[in-house]
Amino acid sequence: MRELKDELDACLRRLFPLCRSLTGEANRQTLHILNEIAPLTIHEVPTGTAVYDWMVPDEWNIRDAWISGPQGHRIVDFQSSNLHVVGYSEPVELDCDWAQLKPHLHIHPNLPEAIPYRTSYYQRDWGFCVTHAQYAELERAQGSFHVVIDSDLKPGSLTYGEILLPGQSTQEILISCYLCHPSMANDSLSGVLLAAFLARHLAGRERLHYSYRIVFVPETLGAIAYCAQNEQAMKNIDMALVITTAGGPGKFGYKQSWNIAHPINRLVEEVFRESGEDFITYPFDVHGSDERQYSSQGFRINCATISKDRYYEYPEYHSSLDNLDFVTAGQLEESFDLYLRLIDKLESRRVYRNRIPHCEAMLSKRALYPTTGGAQRPELNGRSELDLMLWILFLSDGRQSTADIASTLGIEVKDVESIVEKLIEKEVLEHV
Amino acid sequence: MRELKDELDACLRRLFPLCRSLTGEANRQTLHILNEIAPLTIHEVPTGTAVYDWMVPDEWNIRDAWISGPQGHRIVDFQSSNLHVVGYSEPVELDCDWAQLKPHLHIHPNLPEAIPYRTSYYQRDWGFCVTHAQYAELERAQGSFHVVIDSDLKPGSLTYGEILLPGQSTQEILISCYLCHPSMANDSLSGVLLAAFLARHLAGRERLHYSYRIVFVPETLGAIAYCAQNEQAMKNIDMALVITTAGGPGKFGYKQSWNIAHPINRLVEEVFRESGEDFITYPFDVHGSDERQYSSQGFRINCATISKDRYYEYPEYHSSLDNLDFVTAGQLEESFDLYLRLIDKLESRRVYRNRIPHCEAMLSKRALYPTTGGAQRPELNGRSELDLMLWILFLSDGRQSTADIASTLGIEVKDVESIVEKLIEKEVLEHV
Amino acid sequence: MRELKDELDACLRRLFPLCRSLTGEANRQTLHILNEIAPLTIHEVPTGTAVYDWMVPDEWNIRDAWISGPQGHRIVDFQSSNLHVVGYSEPVELDCDWAQLKPHLHIHPNLPEAIPYRTSYYQRDWGFCVTHAQYAELERAQGSFHVVIDSDLKPGSLTYGEILLPGQSTQEILISCYLCHPSMANDSLSGVLLAAFLARHLAGRERLHYSYRIVFVPETLGAIAYCAQNEQAMKNIDMALVITTAGGPGKFGYKQSWNIAHPINRLVEEVFRESGEDFITYPFDVHGSDERQYSSQGFRINCATISKDRYYEYPEYHSSLDNLDFVTAGQLEESFDLYLRLIDKLESRRVYRNRIPHCEAMLSKRALYPTTGGAQRPELNGRSELDLMLWILFLSDGRQSTADIASTLGIEVKDVESIVEKLIEKEVLEHV
Repeated sequence: MRELKDELDACLRRLFPLCRSLTGEANRQTLHILNEIAPLTIHEVPTGTAVYDWMVPDEWNIRDAWISGPQGHRIVDFQSSNLHVVGYSEPVELDCDWAQLKPHLHIHPNLPEAIPYRTSYYQRDWGFCVTHAQYAELERAQGSFHVVIDSDLKPGSLTYGEILLPGQSTQEILISCYLCHPSMANDSLSGVLLAAFLARHLAGRERLHYSYRIVFVPETLGAIAYCAQNEQAMKNIDMALVITTAGGPGKFGYKQSWNIAHPINRLVEEVFRESGEDFITYPFDVHGSDERQYSSQGFRINCATISKDRYYEYPEYHSSLDNLDFVTAGQLEESFDLYLRLIDKLESRRVYRNRIPHCEAMLSKRALYPTTGGAQRPELNGRSELDLMLWILFLSDGRQSTADIASTLGIEVKDVESIVEKLIEKEVLEHV
Repeated sequence: MRELKDELDACLRRLFPLCRSLTGEANRQTLHILNEIAPLTIHEVPTGTAVYDWMVPDEWNIRDAWISGPQGHRIVDFQSSNLHVVGYSEPVELDCDWAQLKPHLHIHPNLPEAIPYRTSYYQRDWGFCVTHAQYAELERAQGSFHVVIDSDLKPGSLTYGEILLPGQSTQEILISCYLCHPSMANDSLSGVLLAAFLARHLAGRERLHYSYRIVFVPETLGAIAYCAQNEQAMKNIDMALVITTAGGPGKFGYKQSWNIAHPINRLVEEVFRESGEDFITYPFDVHGSDERQYSSQGFRINCATISKDRYYEYPEYHSSLDNLDFVTAGQLEESFDLYLRLIDKLESRRVYRNRIPHCEAMLSKRALYPTTGGAQRPELNGRSELDLMLWILFLSDGRQSTADIASTLGIEVKDVESIVEKLIEKEVLEHV
Repeated sequence: MRELKDELDACLRRLFPLCRSLTGEANRQTLHILNEIAPLTIHEVPTGTAVYDWMVPDEWNIRDAWISGPQGHRIVDFQSSNLHVVGYSEPVELDCDWAQLKPHLHIHPNLPEAIPYRTSYYQRDWGFCVTHAQYAELERAQGSFHVVIDSDLKPGSLTYGEILLPGQSTQEILISCYLCHPSMANDSLSGVLLAAFLARHLAGRERLHYSYRIVFVPETLGAIAYCAQNEQAMKNIDMALVITTAGGPGKFGYKQSWNIAHPINRLVEEVFRESGEDFITYPFDVHGSDERQYSSQGFRINCATISKDRYYEYPEYHSSLDNLDFVTAGQLEESFDLYLRLIDKLESRRVYRNRIPHCEAMLSKRALYPTTGGAQRPELNGRSELDLMLWILFLSDGRQSTADIASTLGIEVKDVESIVEKLIEKEVLEHV
């Protein structure tokens, strides 16, 4: 496992500095790097495209930005942190005094040394995010400031990545992460990397039961655009993993899907219990990440999120302290392992359909039945394999999973599955 | 409120004397008077029209009737009470003795001084309803009687009145009363007046949520004819108020609708509780008034009735003692107030549908969202308006009322509704 | 009842000796004898016919078989019991020693004096079933054995019998028994005779409510062939009686249908309770008789079985001790009586539909209503017939049975039914 951690670490370091946003070149660069991990398709949605209640805005790119003081040196410099500029700031070049500058400055309410994260996607504006020390320095400076934001906002497109991995079933599981955040490691980047490495893992499996739809979208608008462009496919999806904030040093947690009775919730809890991890349970909430879109009335997909230091909860959230000191490859790998266990559980979730629904299957011609008929009584001492086989065929109606059947019969899932294997091999059962 | 009582009193006095029946001129006169209260459309269903299992009979009109004794004076006189003649009595002019007369006389079994109410709509017959004293006088009289019923039974029509008040919703509430009874004040007339004054009130409201269908029909056959002529509309109706016997001096009561879990029952009980009125609960019964038709298998409308001295229960029922001593304008007004409260409750019942079912609505373009993104955390201290807004949009699926949603969210209905108002104004929610 | 017992006794003696099997002449002879009890149609399904997952094999007939020892006398002789030969044994004529003979011998594991019952339908083989004493004699014998099985296995057909009794309703009840066992009295033969005598009884009834489909099939393959050839009809059947092992000296029992809430289960329990019989309840099981086919996913018919010494449970099961000492005509008659009571219950189960679903039926034109309207109050002292009539019309929606309605109204079923009769006569209700 040494290797994966190294890979994660290398990717964290390579992707962290890019100034991702709702749109722009850095998003494309990020997708190209992810493409090295798991081949993906890049889609562009042009500026002006209507997606449900929303519209894709101009594309934003930024090259440089700074505030220099009366002495001419850069007090605030985009080159030292891309968080210094409010996302989607319009281009600016002006000289101004403190009174004019002040309304464009943002500081973190609680963390003096942190640069906060701010955006203004849908209202043209510009601004700088600064530490308390920088703010004080600017306030103290006498004379005029020179302010430059070398950005542009012009027609372009919103960019997202997509990986479709066909499995044996036409049923799909959605894995979604968001790539729209600049240099923040837990929020956004941890999810992007986990999604990419899970994609690589899934693509490398000999066989997949479910089909997987893995998407790398800018949060909210990107997910909305994705839904709008794949509406029918999305309406057919029953469950999703929305991966985010999974690399912090703190506690694991999971956010439940909107329908608390959906199997995905039980499976996540099993993963935690079986791995001995303590975890926080976050009930479904309309706040959160892109499960907000996927759970909306038009889709009602059940989305679960396994997190480690979940958004809203850790003090460094949405600030420059959500960095590579906070997120480590080792922590990310722990979450990766949990997601893998969950995928194993999902993949091993089995729903079958009896291919011979009318009357009984002829077991003897498939060497599944004692060939001499007329036994004095079936082996009901305990429960014979024949007995279980007949019950499994009776109950496998394409809706009940092997876990459901095991519970009905009062036996272990593995005992159901060992018989199911035989019945599949003999082509009496089929996977759905 | 002084005024309404006076109006009710004037109307009671004006309408009480008319000899209404299943059909006839007095029904038309009644509708014309009601038209002064609330404009209505008068419909005529011709004799011979088949309505489901029934057929509209000949129209009945009566001008005069009496039994004079051997001395020539009128012992029984239609002019002193229209209840003296069995409804739908065929025309008669004959001289007869006591033995011939006796089978045509009806007395009240319990109330000696009362004239009972009798009809013979579907079997040609004639008869007189008399007090015990009149019966004794006739029995004692020696010699021949002269019997006259100056009526006619000939092709005409069944008459009903209808008021359609469009509301914002296409969902309709049916209000039904029956106008087929002659001089009886609680049974029939109280309901007719309440329906008319409720119609006037509703028509005068600035806005109505529900649409209202208010009908003044002869009981049973009129309701059946109405259903037959408006079958599709009636099949779309979910709830109704069948107004009758609401003006007595006794206790309030309400008859439940056939589906005890229907909200109309809960709303009526709330009205009683909130107004501090004690009340009798009558479970749904196949006996009763026109809910018998509206609740039948073809329609299954949930009908509630608020009563004050309900039919069957008061001794004066179906007799000349159900008169203007028994029913007063003040009592009627009390029932009117309860019905108004119920209508307020119905009108304030709100079911909404998110007009943007796919993904989230873009709140910022509607000035419903903070324009600077990336806040450190949503205001979860208590529950922010944004939080509630998102939940309300998530839950408003066109089936759950604001009361249901308030209960799910554990907040007050008014808090749901104040947010709903904003969302409607911004055209994100729509009323259903 | 003397006569029926005698008839049953005669039939038992006549049918017991025939060497029935999956196919063959003895099955046809059996059906011809049953045809004397209740006329039936004989169907032949040719060898090689595919029926769902199965195929009809060659037809088997046997004339004689024996093992003679070194001294030349028959130690094992088919003429003394047809159970001596494994069902579907291929023809054999050979001389062999003990080592060669031994693998072809079968003894009963628990009952030394019994000949066990064995078949080998789908794997070509031959064999003899013997008592422990015979086995010992063969083992002790010095020298060579002469073994003869004078059978043949060649293209022919599978034979089944069918009786269709049309009732007033198009809804059918399936009665199924299996005729594929040689000389065993409780297993198979008891069910065959009960089915035939029930058919005669039903055919003799003046009127039948349900239609009946009574089938005499070889177990498993015959039921499967029947389903395949009558798929659509079988899919429309809701309930069945699978009759078997109903003639033993032991306890009554009943096997529940797959859906425990199905009325058939309640009705069987009522039969037992009302006849004061103690009984064993066997929950539904995928083992059993032809309910295995009828309950499969493609049909999901609810099948009940009333048994007396049920299969699997009595020691003599599947052996020569399941004979006419074990089964008596008297015992069979007891089961016949219970099945008759059940059929009475089924026949008296009534589900009606109001033919006038919109508004009320006009009762007066059908002489079902007092002709003088305006009674002071309906006769609610107790419950008037009119009251019940209105309720029955309100509730008769084609799904609720009279028993359901009686339970809703808190009255006796017979009171519901006496009113239903009137309403049917007047063509207001119809049977479904």
